[in-house]
Amino acid sequence: MKTYLDCLPCFMNQALRAGRIATNNEKKIKKLLDEVGKLIEKIPLENTPPETGAIIYKKVSEITNNFDPYKKIKEKNIKHAMQLYPELKFVVKESNDSLLTAIRLAVAGNVIDLGIDKEFNIVEDIETILHQEFAVFDYELFKQELETAKEILYIGDNAGEAVFDKILIEKLGKPVTFAVREIPVINDITFKEAKQIGIDKVAKVISSGSIAPGTILDLCSNEFIEIFNNADMVISKGQGNYEGLSGVNRSIFFLLKAKCPVIANNLGVKENDIILKGI
Amino acid sequence: MKTYLDCLPCFMNQALRAGRIATNNEKKIKKLLDEVGKLIEKIPLENTPPETGAIIYKKVSEITNNFDPYKKIKEKNIKHAMQLYPELKFVVKESNDSLLTAIRLAVAGNVIDLGIDKEFNIVEDIETILHQEFAVFDYELFKQELETAKEILYIGDNAGEAVFDKILIEKLGKPVTFAVREIPVINDITFKEAKQIGIDKVAKVISSGSIAPGTILDLCSNEFIEIFNNADMVISKGQGNYEGLSGVNRSIFFLLKAKCPVIANNLGVKENDIILKGI
Repeated sequence: MKTYLDCLPCFMNQALRAGRIATNNEKKIKKLLDEVGKLIEKIPLENTPPETGAIIYKKVSEITNNFDPYKKIKEKNIKHAMQLYPELKFVVKESNDSLLTAIRLAVAGNVIDLGIDKEFNIVEDIETILHQEFAVFDYELFKQELETAKEILYIGDNAGEAVFDKILIEKLGKPVTFAVREIPVINDITFKEAKQIGIDKVAKVISSGSIAPGTILDLCSNEFIEIFNNADMVISKGQGNYEGLSGVNRSIFFLLKAKCPVIANNLGVKENDIILKGI
Repeated sequence: MKTYLDCLPCFMNQALRAGRIATNNEKKIKKLLDEVGKLIEKIPLENTPPETGAIIYKKVSEITNNFDPYKKIKEKNIKHAMQLYPELKFVVKESNDSLLTAIRLAVAGNVIDLGIDKEFNIVEDIETILHQEFAVFDYELFKQELETAKEILYIGDNAGEAVFDKILIEKLGKPVTFAVREIPVINDITFKEAKQIGIDKVAKVISSGSIAPGTILDLCSNEFIEIFNNADMVISKGQGNYEGLSGVNRSIFFLLKAKCPVIANNLGVKENDIILKGI
């Protein structure tokens, strides 16, 4: 996905938000915003947003000297999600279409990481998404690909939602490779959190090599690109991965909630719609 | 009021919004955002926000070659407000405390210019504000100053709200000088709209000399500064004027709705609160 004009002020907002999480030093945050301001001119609208995200979050770490600002938030999210895990496994088991329920929960996972200060809503959000209509729903295609797939690549997104991804991976019943970010970027999942959640018990965990809050093939490791090209099926979670991969020439299933108006517009859906889109 | 960190992304958002109103040319809007991005570094947090606003909206005009982008919006707002005028005059006349009702309507006017695409809400907003509690309410002080004042300076804000200001000016019953911006900036009132509304029939209309979306004394004309210093009472409408004048060492009554979290925080009130604050 290209960068839209609306993404430019959003980059500044993201920098401010991340800066405040990384430090209390107002001068450092001002310095960060100065740097991101100067960066705007260098962003061609043809770039995908996470390419710029990579630069911004690198600046956040360098200027604040905090290389994992979202550490505590990730821990809190994971802990909460893992408390819900047994009940959610039961919900999947008891449902009429357990694969679809697991997919819905994986989308619900994509939501909760936004609601950092609204943890009491997680359960409500799950409840909503369990009954929400998909705005794009390529489920038949998903089932067809899944049936014949021998190797599945599952590209993770936020740390907390990976607990929900684990439920879907267990339900897929096929060998899965789960890709994480190379280093901490926003609250995205890295190898450390994947192990903590136990993703390594249900899938082979690899780094995509990406330092961006999304998957941009040009910036990924050769190992990841080979797996990406050879996988029978690719499942991509969340906005950042969609932004990086939506223009790629291979079949991919995108599983996400459209959390910003730009993404919603790009997908031809409304904000807060949920998506299972095959390309 | 100083510039807060939150103002910096907001400047980018304002530039995007104004750019889109001024032109359909995406390249020009990108250029505008590039320029505003580079400007961030040069903004000391000690500056008041409208000082930066002046630079940004000048860039909007120069880059898009549109020197009154909000012309049609202002016309629409004024037309609608003038349709309401006779009924609002009646409301003031019939109320128990007609001065306070006129003050409330002047605050309501500060709201409607925000709701450009929500014209059906103007009447609702007026209805709300007619019954809303003031979060800061220096009404006794206001009445005291008014009683002895011989010359009042009333500093206008948006074009549409000046119709409501006219009602308050008529109610004040004292000689009033009404200050407008020197040139069009956002949808703020200039001499042209003041005449169209008939403010010149109830007050002496002068330009403050300001090209900023607010009143910064250092950037105002000598004529205005003299009137400002010598007036027995100063009434300042809206956020931009508050941002520019809140640190000035003379008595001023600020009449506004706190429309952004930064202003609300600065005033120690909640967003959407209404304010009659004397300093």
